[in-house]
Amino acid sequence: MITVLDSPAEVGNNPYILVVEDSDVDFYTFLRILKKLDQEDPEPLPHYLLRFADGDEVLDYLLRRGDYETVVAPYPAAILLDLNLPGTDGRDVIQILKQHADLQVVPIIALSSSRSPQDVFTCYSYGVNSYVGKAMGTLETERVMRMLFHYWFECALLPTSSFP
Amino acid sequence: MITVLDSPAEVGNNPYILVVEDSDVDFYTFLRILKKLDQEDPEPLPHYLLRFADGDEVLDYLLRRGDYETVVAPYPAAILLDLNLPGTDGRDVIQILKQHADLQVVPIIALSSSRSPQDVFTCYSYGVNSYVGKAMGTLETERVMRMLFHYWFECALLPTSSFP
Repeated sequence: MITVLDSPAEVGNNPYILVVEDSDVDFYTFLRILKKLDQEDPEPLPHYLLRFADGDEVLDYLLRRGDYETVVAPYPAAILLDLNLPGTDGRDVIQILKQHADLQVVPIIALSSSRSPQDVFTCYSYGVNSYVGKAMGTLETERVMRMLFHYWFECALLPTSSFP
Repeated sequence: MITVLDSPAEVGNNPYILVVEDSDVDFYTFLRILKKLDQEDPEPLPHYLLRFADGDEVLDYLLRRGDYETVVAPYPAAILLDLNLPGTDGRDVIQILKQHADLQVVPIIALSSSRSPQDVFTCYSYGVNSYVGKAMGTLETERVMRMLFHYWFECALLPTSSFP
Protein backbone atom coordinates (compact mmCIF):
# COMPACT_ATOMS: atom_id res chain seq x y z
CA MET A 1 0.00 0.00 0.00
CA ILE A 2 1.48 3.32 -1.13
CA THR A 3 0.34 6.38 0.80
CA VAL A 4 1.41 9.89 -0.15
CA LEU A 5 1.38 12.08 2.95
CA ASP A 6 0.20 15.64 2.40
CA SER A 7 2.38 17.16 5.12
CA PRO A 8 4.78 16.23 7.95
CA ALA A 9 1.82 16.51 10.34
CA GLU A 10 0.45 13.27 8.81
CA VAL A 11 3.61 11.20 9.44
CA GLY A 12 2.79 10.09 12.98
CA ASN A 13 5.11 7.25 13.97
CA ASN A 14 5.23 5.67 10.51
CA PRO A 15 8.58 5.02 8.82
CA TYR A 16 8.47 6.98 5.56
CA ILE A 17 10.48 7.70 2.45
CA LEU A 18 11.30 11.34 1.85
CA VAL A 19 11.15 12.08 -1.88
CA VAL A 20 12.85 15.31 -2.93
CA GLU A 21 11.81 15.96 -6.53
CA ASP A 22 10.85 19.26 -8.11
CA SER A 23 9.46 17.77 -11.32
CA ASP A 24 5.79 16.83 -11.08
CA VAL A 25 6.19 14.63 -14.16
CA ASP A 26 9.04 12.66 -12.56
CA PHE A 27 7.27 12.40 -9.21
CA TYR A 28 4.00 11.12 -10.66
CA THR A 29 5.84 8.70 -12.96
CA PHE A 30 7.64 7.34 -9.90
CA LEU A 31 4.35 7.09 -8.00
CA ARG A 32 2.61 5.31 -10.88
CA ILE A 33 5.42 2.72 -11.02
CA LEU A 34 5.33 2.17 -7.24
CA LYS A 35 1.59 1.61 -7.36
CA LYS A 36 2.08 -0.92 -10.16
CA LEU A 37 4.77 -2.79 -8.15
CA ASP A 38 2.46 -2.71 -5.18
CA GLN A 39 -0.41 -4.24 -7.17
CA GLU A 40 1.86 -7.01 -8.46
CA ASP A 41 2.95 -7.91 -4.92
CA PRO A 42 0.82 -10.62 -3.28
CA GLU A 43 1.73 -9.28 0.18
CA PRO A 44 2.47 -5.58 -0.34
CA LEU A 45 4.18 -3.74 2.51
CA PRO A 46 2.82 -0.36 3.57
CA HIS A 47 4.99 2.48 2.23
CA TYR A 48 4.54 6.13 3.14
CA LEU A 49 5.97 8.89 0.96
CA LEU A 50 6.48 12.52 1.90
CA ARG A 51 7.46 14.84 -0.95
CA PHE A 52 9.41 18.08 -1.01
CA ALA A 53 10.21 19.98 -4.18
CA ASP A 54 12.80 22.50 -3.00
CA GLY A 55 16.27 22.08 -1.46
CA ASP A 56 15.84 24.90 1.05
CA GLU A 57 12.49 23.63 2.22
CA VAL A 58 13.64 20.06 2.77
CA LEU A 59 16.59 21.34 4.81
CA ASP A 60 14.24 23.55 6.84
CA TYR A 61 12.10 20.47 7.51
CA LEU A 62 14.95 18.10 8.40
CA LEU A 63 16.80 20.68 10.49
CA ARG A 64 13.53 21.97 12.02
CA ARG A 65 14.01 25.56 11.00
CA GLY A 66 11.62 28.32 9.92
CA ASP A 67 8.08 27.04 9.28
CA TYR A 68 9.08 23.58 10.53
CA GLU A 69 10.53 24.60 13.89
CA THR A 70 7.77 23.06 15.96
CA VAL A 71 6.89 20.05 13.74
CA VAL A 72 6.80 16.69 15.53
CA ALA A 73 7.78 13.87 13.15
CA PRO A 74 10.54 11.24 13.06
CA TYR A 75 13.42 11.50 10.62
CA PRO A 76 12.76 9.61 7.36
CA ALA A 77 13.77 5.96 6.87
CA ALA A 78 15.49 6.96 3.62
CA ILE A 79 15.74 9.89 1.22
CA LEU A 80 15.34 9.73 -2.58
CA LEU A 81 17.00 12.91 -3.73
CA ASP A 82 16.94 14.56 -7.13
CA LEU A 83 20.17 16.52 -7.59
CA ASN A 84 18.99 19.50 -9.59
CA LEU A 85 16.65 21.32 -7.27
CA PRO A 86 15.43 24.87 -6.78
CA GLY A 87 16.92 26.37 -3.61
CA THR A 88 19.88 24.47 -2.16
CA ASP A 89 21.33 22.11 -4.76
CA GLY A 90 20.98 18.35 -4.12
CA ARG A 91 24.78 17.91 -3.89
CA ASP A 92 24.88 20.48 -1.07
CA VAL A 93 21.90 18.83 0.62
CA ILE A 94 23.90 15.56 0.74
CA GLN A 95 26.94 17.31 2.20
CA ILE A 96 24.91 19.09 4.89
CA LEU A 97 22.93 15.99 5.94
CA LYS A 98 25.99 13.73 6.02
CA GLN A 99 27.73 16.15 8.39
CA HIS A 100 24.76 16.23 10.78
CA ALA A 101 25.18 14.10 13.92
CA ASP A 102 21.72 12.48 13.76
CA LEU A 103 20.77 12.72 10.09
CA GLN A 104 24.01 11.21 8.75
CA VAL A 105 22.72 7.64 9.26
CA VAL A 106 19.67 8.20 7.02
CA PRO A 107 20.39 6.53 3.66
CA ILE A 108 20.35 8.98 0.75
CA ILE A 109 19.85 7.66 -2.76
CA ALA A 110 20.64 10.30 -5.38
CA LEU A 111 18.54 10.21 -8.54
CA SER A 112 19.72 12.30 -11.41
CA SER A 113 19.57 12.63 -15.15
CA SER A 114 23.29 13.45 -14.92
CA ARG A 115 25.55 10.45 -15.52
CA SER A 116 28.68 12.60 -15.36
CA PRO A 117 31.49 10.73 -13.56
CA GLN A 118 32.30 14.02 -11.80
CA ASP A 119 28.78 14.26 -10.34
CA VAL A 120 28.85 10.60 -9.32
CA PHE A 121 32.25 11.00 -7.65
CA THR A 122 31.26 14.23 -5.87
CA CYS A 123 28.10 12.69 -4.43
CA TYR A 124 29.93 9.60 -3.12
CA SER A 125 32.68 11.82 -1.68
CA TYR A 126 29.94 13.78 0.17
CA GLY A 127 28.71 10.47 1.59
CA VAL A 128 25.70 9.62 -0.60
CA ASN A 129 24.70 5.99 -0.07
CA SER A 130 23.97 5.30 -3.70
CA TYR A 131 23.58 7.11 -7.03
CA VAL A 132 21.16 6.09 -9.75
CA GLY A 133 20.89 7.66 -13.19
CA LYS A 134 17.34 8.54 -14.24
CA ALA A 135 16.46 6.38 -17.22
CA MET A 136 15.10 7.52 -20.57
CA GLY A 137 11.75 6.09 -21.68
CA THR A 138 8.91 4.43 -19.80
CA LEU A 139 10.11 0.82 -19.87
CA GLU A 140 13.65 1.61 -18.78
CA THR A 141 12.39 3.99 -16.07
CA GLU A 142 10.17 1.22 -14.76
CA ARG A 143 13.04 -1.29 -14.82
CA VAL A 144 15.33 1.06 -12.86
CA MET A 145 12.66 2.07 -10.35
CA ARG A 146 11.72 -1.56 -9.80
CA MET A 147 15.34 -2.47 -8.97
CA LEU A 148 15.79 0.58 -6.78
CA PHE A 149 12.59 0.08 -4.86
CA HIS A 150 12.93 -3.67 -4.37
CA TYR A 151 16.54 -3.37 -3.29
CA TRP A 152 16.24 -0.48 -0.84
CA PHE A 153 12.79 -1.14 0.56
CA GLU A 154 12.46 -4.93 0.46
CA CYS A 155 16.02 -6.20 0.64
CA ALA A 156 18.38 -3.75 2.41
CA LEU A 157 18.09 -3.20 6.17
CA LEU A 158 17.67 0.47 7.09
CA PRO A 159 18.51 2.13 10.38
CA THR A 160 15.57 2.53 12.75
CA SER A 161 14.11 6.03 12.40
CA SER A 162 14.67 8.37 15.32
CA PHE A 163 12.95 11.55 16.42
CA PRO A 164 14.92 14.83 16.44
CA MET B 1 31.08 -13.25 -17.53
CA ILE B 2 32.17 -13.78 -13.94
CA THR B 3 35.92 -14.04 -13.36
CA VAL B 4 37.41 -14.78 -9.95
CA LEU B 5 40.89 -13.25 -9.77
CA ASP B 6 43.46 -15.32 -7.89
CA SER B 7 45.45 -12.34 -6.61
CA PRO B 8 45.71 -8.53 -6.90
CA ALA B 9 48.44 -9.06 -9.51
CA GLU B 10 45.70 -10.26 -11.91
CA VAL B 11 43.53 -7.13 -11.59
CA GLY B 12 45.23 -5.06 -14.29
CA ASN B 13 43.05 -2.07 -15.14
CA ASN B 14 39.76 -3.91 -14.72
CA PRO B 15 37.07 -2.55 -12.38
CA TYR B 16 36.46 -5.29 -9.83
CA ILE B 17 34.32 -6.15 -6.83
CA LEU B 18 36.22 -6.88 -3.64
CA VAL B 19 34.46 -9.65 -1.72
CA VAL B 20 35.47 -9.97 1.93
CA GLU B 21 34.05 -13.25 3.18
CA ASP B 22 35.72 -15.79 5.42
CA SER B 23 33.14 -18.55 4.87
CA ASP B 24 33.92 -20.75 1.85
CA VAL B 25 30.32 -21.98 1.87
CA ASP B 26 28.94 -18.43 1.67
CA PHE B 27 31.47 -17.36 -0.96
CA TYR B 28 30.82 -20.32 -3.26
CA THR B 29 27.05 -19.97 -2.81
CA PHE B 30 27.38 -16.33 -3.85
CA LEU B 31 29.53 -17.30 -6.83
CA ARG B 32 27.10 -20.01 -7.95
CA ILE B 33 24.22 -17.51 -7.89
CA LEU B 34 26.21 -14.89 -9.82
CA LYS B 35 27.06 -17.46 -12.49
CA LYS B 36 23.39 -18.37 -12.76
CA LEU B 37 22.38 -14.70 -13.14
CA ASP B 38 25.10 -14.33 -15.74
CA GLN B 39 23.79 -17.30 -17.74
CA GLU B 40 20.26 -15.88 -17.65
CA ASP B 41 21.43 -12.55 -19.02
CA PRO B 42 21.31 -12.28 -22.84
CA GLU B 43 24.08 -9.66 -22.76
CA PRO B 44 26.10 -10.38 -19.61
CA LEU B 45 28.55 -7.73 -18.47
CA PRO B 46 32.07 -8.78 -17.46
CA HIS B 47 32.45 -8.87 -13.67
CA TYR B 48 35.73 -9.47 -11.87
CA LEU B 49 35.81 -10.60 -8.25
CA LEU B 50 38.77 -10.50 -5.86
CA ARG B 51 38.26 -12.28 -2.55
CA PHE B 52 39.81 -11.75 0.87
CA ALA B 53 38.89 -13.80 3.93
CA ASP B 54 40.47 -11.78 6.74
CA GLY B 55 39.92 -8.21 7.99
CA ASP B 56 43.61 -7.52 8.60
CA GLU B 57 44.63 -8.77 5.19
CA VAL B 58 42.06 -6.74 3.28
CA LEU B 59 43.18 -3.61 5.14
CA ASP B 60 46.83 -4.43 4.34
CA TYR B 61 45.84 -4.73 0.68
CA LEU B 62 43.72 -1.57 0.50
CA LEU B 63 46.18 0.51 2.53
CA ARG B 64 49.18 -1.04 0.75
CA ARG B 65 50.90 -2.27 3.86
CA GLY B 66 53.00 -5.35 4.68
CA ASP B 67 52.96 -7.95 1.88
CA TYR B 68 50.94 -5.58 -0.33
CA GLU B 69 53.23 -2.55 -0.10
CA THR B 70 54.40 -2.72 -3.70
CA VAL B 71 51.26 -4.10 -5.35
CA VAL B 72 50.04 -2.14 -8.40
CA ALA B 73 46.24 -2.36 -8.73
CA PRO B 74 43.38 0.15 -8.72
CA TYR B 75 41.04 0.46 -5.77
CA PRO B 76 37.92 -1.73 -6.13
CA ALA B 77 34.70 -0.46 -7.75
CA ALA B 78 32.78 -1.68 -4.69
CA ILE B 79 33.24 -3.84 -1.61
CA LEU B 80 30.92 -6.61 -0.42
CA LEU B 81 31.85 -6.99 3.22
CA ASP B 82 30.91 -9.72 5.67
CA LEU B 83 30.86 -8.24 9.18
CA ASN B 84 32.11 -11.15 11.26
CA LEU B 85 35.65 -11.67 10.07
CA PRO B 86 38.85 -13.06 11.51
CA GLY B 87 41.35 -10.25 12.13
CA THR B 88 39.91 -6.74 12.13
CA ASP B 89 36.11 -6.90 12.49
CA GLY B 90 34.01 -5.79 9.50
CA ARG B 91 32.51 -2.88 11.46
CA ASP B 92 36.01 -1.54 12.11
CA VAL B 93 36.97 -2.09 8.47
CA ILE B 94 34.05 0.18 7.47
CA GLN B 95 35.11 2.88 9.93
CA ILE B 96 38.74 2.82 8.77
CA LEU B 97 37.92 2.90 5.05
CA LYS B 98 35.31 5.64 5.40
CA GLN B 99 37.87 7.87 7.14
CA HIS B 100 40.45 7.38 4.37
CA ALA B 101 40.77 10.28 1.94
CA ASP B 102 40.76 8.15 -1.23
CA LEU B 103 38.97 4.96 -0.17
CA GLN B 104 35.94 6.69 1.37
CA VAL B 105 34.22 7.01 -2.03
CA VAL B 106 34.30 3.23 -2.65
CA PRO B 107 30.78 1.89 -1.96
CA ILE B 108 30.71 -0.69 0.84
CA ILE B 109 27.77 -3.08 1.07
CA ALA B 110 27.72 -4.91 4.40
CA LEU B 111 26.42 -8.48 4.30
CA SER B 112 25.69 -10.10 7.60
CA SER B 113 23.64 -12.78 9.25
CA SER B 114 23.05 -10.22 12.02
CA ARG B 115 19.81 -8.32 11.65
CA SER B 116 20.31 -6.54 14.95
CA PRO B 117 19.11 -2.90 14.73
CA GLN B 118 22.23 -1.94 16.72
CA ASP B 119 24.56 -3.51 14.11
CA VAL B 120 22.59 -1.88 11.29
CA PHE B 121 22.72 1.52 13.00
CA THR B 122 26.43 1.25 13.83
CA CYS B 123 27.36 0.37 10.25
CA TYR B 124 25.36 3.28 8.78
CA SER B 125 26.84 5.63 11.38
CA TYR B 126 30.32 4.48 10.26
CA GLY B 127 29.32 5.37 6.69
CA VAL B 128 28.43 2.00 5.14
CA ASN B 129 26.58 2.54 1.87
CA SER B 130 24.10 -0.24 2.42
CA TYR B 131 23.43 -3.19 4.73
CA VAL B 132 21.87 -6.46 3.65
CA GLY B 133 20.92 -9.33 5.94
CA LYS B 134 22.13 -12.74 4.75
CA ALA B 135 19.08 -14.82 3.95
CA MET B 136 18.26 -18.30 5.23
CA GLY B 137 17.73 -21.03 2.64
CA THR B 138 18.73 -21.37 -1.00
CA LEU B 139 15.75 -19.70 -2.65
CA GLU B 140 15.74 -16.69 -0.37
CA THR B 141 19.54 -16.32 -0.65
CA GLU B 142 19.19 -16.32 -4.42
CA ARG B 143 16.39 -13.73 -4.29
CA VAL B 144 18.45 -11.39 -2.09
CA MET B 145 21.66 -11.83 -4.09
CA ARG B 146 19.78 -11.23 -7.34
CA MET B 147 18.39 -7.92 -6.02
CA LEU B 148 21.74 -6.87 -4.58
CA PHE B 149 23.71 -7.72 -7.70
CA HIS B 150 21.26 -6.23 -10.19
CA TYR B 151 20.88 -3.06 -8.18
CA TRP B 152 24.52 -2.33 -7.43
CA PHE B 153 26.15 -3.64 -10.60
CA GLU B 154 23.56 -2.99 -13.29
CA CYS B 155 21.52 -0.07 -12.00
CA ALA B 156 23.50 2.16 -9.60
CA LEU B 157 26.32 4.34 -10.94
CA LEU B 158 29.61 3.77 -9.11
CA PRO B 159 32.53 6.17 -8.81
CA THR B 160 35.31 5.59 -11.32
CA SER B 161 38.06 3.48 -9.75
CA SER B 162 41.29 5.26 -9.01
CA PHE B 163 44.83 4.01 -8.37
CA PRO B 164 46.44 4.62 -4.96
